[in-house]
Amino acid sequence: IAKEVAKLLEMKAQLGGDEGKHKFVLKTPKGTRDYSPKQMAIRERVFNAIITCFKRHGAEVIDTPVFELKETLTGKYGEDSKLIYDLKDQGGELLSLRYDLTVPFARYLAMNKITNMKRYHVAKVYRRDNPATTRGRYREFYQCDFDIAGQFDPMIPDAECLKIVHEILSDLQLGDFLIKVNDRRILDGMFAVCGVPDSKFRTICSSVDKLDKMPWEEVRSEMVGEKGLSPEAADHIGEYVQLHGGLDLIERLLQDPKLSQNKLAKEGLGDMKLLFEYLTLFGITGKISFDLSLARGLDYYTGVIFEAVLLQSENDHVEEPVGVGSVAGGGRYDGLVGMFDPKGRKVPCVGVSIGIERIFSILEQRVEASEEKIRTTETQVLVASAQKKLLEERLKLISELWNAGIKAEVLYKKNPKLLNQLQYCEDTGIPLVAIVGEQELKDGVVKLRVVATREEVNVRRESLVEEIRMRTSRP
Amino acid sequence: IAKEVAKLLEMKAQLGGDEGKHKFVLKTPKGTRDYSPKQMAIRERVFNAIITCFKRHGAEVIDTPVFELKETLTGKYGEDSKLIYDLKDQGGELLSLRYDLTVPFARYLAMNKITNMKRYHVAKVYRRDNPATTRGRYREFYQCDFDIAGQFDPMIPDAECLKIVHEILSDLQLGDFLIKVNDRRILDGMFAVCGVPDSKFRTICSSVDKLDKMPWEEVRSEMVGEKGLSPEAADHIGEYVQLHGGLDLIERLLQDPKLSQNKLAKEGLGDMKLLFEYLTLFGITGKISFDLSLARGLDYYTGVIFEAVLLQSENDHVEEPVGVGSVAGGGRYDGLVGMFDPKGRKVPCVGVSIGIERIFSILEQRVEASEEKIRTTETQVLVASAQKKLLEERLKLISELWNAGIKAEVLYKKNPKLLNQLQYCEDTGIPLVAIVGEQELKDGVVKLRVVATREEVNVRRESLVEEIRMRTSRP
Repeated sequence: IAKEVAKLLEMKAQLGGDEGKHKFVLKTPKGTRDYSPKQMAIRERVFNAIITCFKRHGAEVIDTPVFELKETLTGKYGEDSKLIYDLKDQGGELLSLRYDLTVPFARYLAMNKITNMKRYHVAKVYRRDNPATTRGRYREFYQCDFDIAGQFDPMIPDAECLKIVHEILSDLQLGDFLIKVNDRRILDGMFAVCGVPDSKFRTICSSVDKLDKMPWEEVRSEMVGEKGLSPEAADHIGEYVQLHGGLDLIERLLQDPKLSQNKLAKEGLGDMKLLFEYLTLFGITGKISFDLSLARGLDYYTGVIFEAVLLQSENDHVEEPVGVGSVAGGGRYDGLVGMFDPKGRKVPCVGVSIGIERIFSILEQRVEASEEKIRTTETQVLVASAQKKLLEERLKLISELWNAGIKAEVLYKKNPKLLNQLQYCEDTGIPLVAIVGEQELKDGVVKLRVVATREEVNVRRESLVEEIRMRTSRP
Repeated sequence: IAKEVAKLLEMKAQLGGDEGKHKFVLKTPKGTRDYSPKQMAIRERVFNAIITCFKRHGAEVIDTPVFELKETLTGKYGEDSKLIYDLKDQGGELLSLRYDLTVPFARYLAMNKITNMKRYHVAKVYRRDNPATTRGRYREFYQCDFDIAGQFDPMIPDAECLKIVHEILSDLQLGDFLIKVNDRRILDGMFAVCGVPDSKFRTICSSVDKLDKMPWEEVRSEMVGEKGLSPEAADHIGEYVQLHGGLDLIERLLQDPKLSQNKLAKEGLGDMKLLFEYLTLFGITGKISFDLSLARGLDYYTGVIFEAVLLQSENDHVEEPVGVGSVAGGGRYDGLVGMFDPKGRKVPCVGVSIGIERIFSILEQRVEASEEKIRTTETQVLVASAQKKLLEERLKLISELWNAGIKAEVLYKKNPKLLNQLQYCEDTGIPLVAIVGEQELKDGVVKLRVVATREEVNVRRESLVEEIRMRTSRP
């Protein structure tokens, strides 16, 4: 008996998995989201503005796989490497999801031995960060990158990257913005003259990078407490990182008795001066600030670095403009491609990344507030009928329209009510209805109704396509 | 001493990682690839044709995350589930890369309680399959999906899906094609009347699915040998799966003494007849074949299934048209959304997936063969100079052009040679050169050169934008 019971229990266990409704957790993974049709419509607008700008500047486009060999990403992101998503080892290669589009680009250049390229890449990247989705911070998010690779005369491609950020942020009408600029060489020179030991440059740089989120006092105590920097060195850094300005500040620092003695700082300041001259020619210095507190977290930058922040508008009744977060960033990374080349051959690069999630959040909120009605389809006409038993005629007509390239829909009902068909047009914003009926079929015409005005005209069947085109062409 | 040596060895070990060139394997993960600018240009053409068609049929667009909770994908793909990519457990949720766009769509509908939607989704999916990249089979590949969800009158949305496949394959001019159609209910009915036990339906269905890659004899021996089916049942199936045709075959099977007695088969055949009536109205039955050997591998189909194959063209000197592989597939899955709904509420769905990788391979080979020159940028004009020391003037001019929306480039050199600038236009297909020189600056003009004809005209600076627009507008 015991044997039989055991057998039955085993059978029950086997069935158990299939029996009864399995409880699913109905959600997307933490820090990710779906895009609804309405959100997609807004997203397309933003992409369109950005890609139009990238093309205006003559960029080609590439795409790379969503995952890379794990070792491709190793040692590129400094302290942030812990945020990389790894794939499970299922036999074969060890893989990780891309963390940005810059490292895959450098790998692409090295792999194809390309020494010269201007490209853009719009794709999702992945970071196991603490999501703050209300502020547009996700674990899966889009980056829109534009990069210039090649050995060129100094600061010309760098200036173009800043021009691009300026064009895109102006074009999207997100309100006032500021582009902060600095140079890793100036930072390193500053660390040297402040008495930071060489081995602590990168980690102190990471601390400085937090100044946009933390007050100086906290950053200072991280430097001194956690990272073991001398209080004097920290205070010295504290004086420098308060500074921001334009050409005047660059000139002043070029005269600074300590900084001007440091080779790296001098080089960086010289190039910064040249950069500002080009930005003056582009007419965009009004929104650019040379800011010694800008550090950027990533390890691979070697020269100019920059970051664009949106400023709270005056409507918000705030005395001082306050940054509401970074929407673009980038810089020069002359060593990254060489890390992939078997012979270490360098390809100097500079690039910019537009962080569209935050931009998208702002535009989405704006659309919500304005109650603007966004169409999520482009349908020009609904093929309808007033009487029953005309499904076949509707299908014949819509087939003609589709074949002529007209965007058309039909309700998937044998005998839909005319009122329901008209309501569908109201709901989805379809501007025209093509109505077939017994009389129209006899007369060789279709009744065309304009949804907005309720105007109705009989159109000869052979002229219908032309009539729809004319009535739905944009003015 | 030993202590000191240990200390030194430890220090050496710490340095070891950074010292010496690390040997990278410079490649993309197995079964994946980069898209070069030229490949992207072809890819964009294909996407454009497909998305234009989806929009013509009134579809909205959504996007979902590249990974889903692992349990979302569990139990949806039958024997193919082993091909799912899992992410490493790094704490938090267990995640898998999406295997198709259908399951995420069903999850989206259930999660948002949507009972009615026509949407498209173009995105990458992931399968740890044996790649055959020369034939366009990758582990990361695009799917372009169009689906109709909702309770409607039978076969109308199903017919529209087939119309869409017909439109896209005609539009892309890939040569002759055939769309095979069957119904899971007809298959199940056939299995029943052939004497296949209920519990073996799905696994025998998988075997039938291999008929496009294996001869019947091998499939038969898999059924009998591996899957334990009786030889009689297998032979019986073998008779049915040879059949293919149109309305005539449907009528014949509706009279089949065995099949007509099976409720499921009768339902399926009745709907198949209705489908063919609608396809006749759409005028596309010429390329549609009702084919009893079509099975489709996925577990979730419940009704109509279909698959489009390209046929080898006559130019290839082959007597019989031979399928060179599936380029689209789909079907009805009325139970999938219910698997996600806590109360099991069903939302009937039918959809089609265009597999663009194979289409893309074909078009890429065609472009290679034709030596057609594909431009990878849209640049309208290069801003150049004939003399030295005019970088500032070039930057000022190009800034004006960018601000006016002209697509313009400049070489990133202080003093580039005119010949090099003209050569750059030849290489990249830029049609116009705007040349600034001392004399032109004095006269308030720019010399505009047409690269193809070498014609040169002086254009007043204030008319330059208009002149470039006119000369580069498409005819």
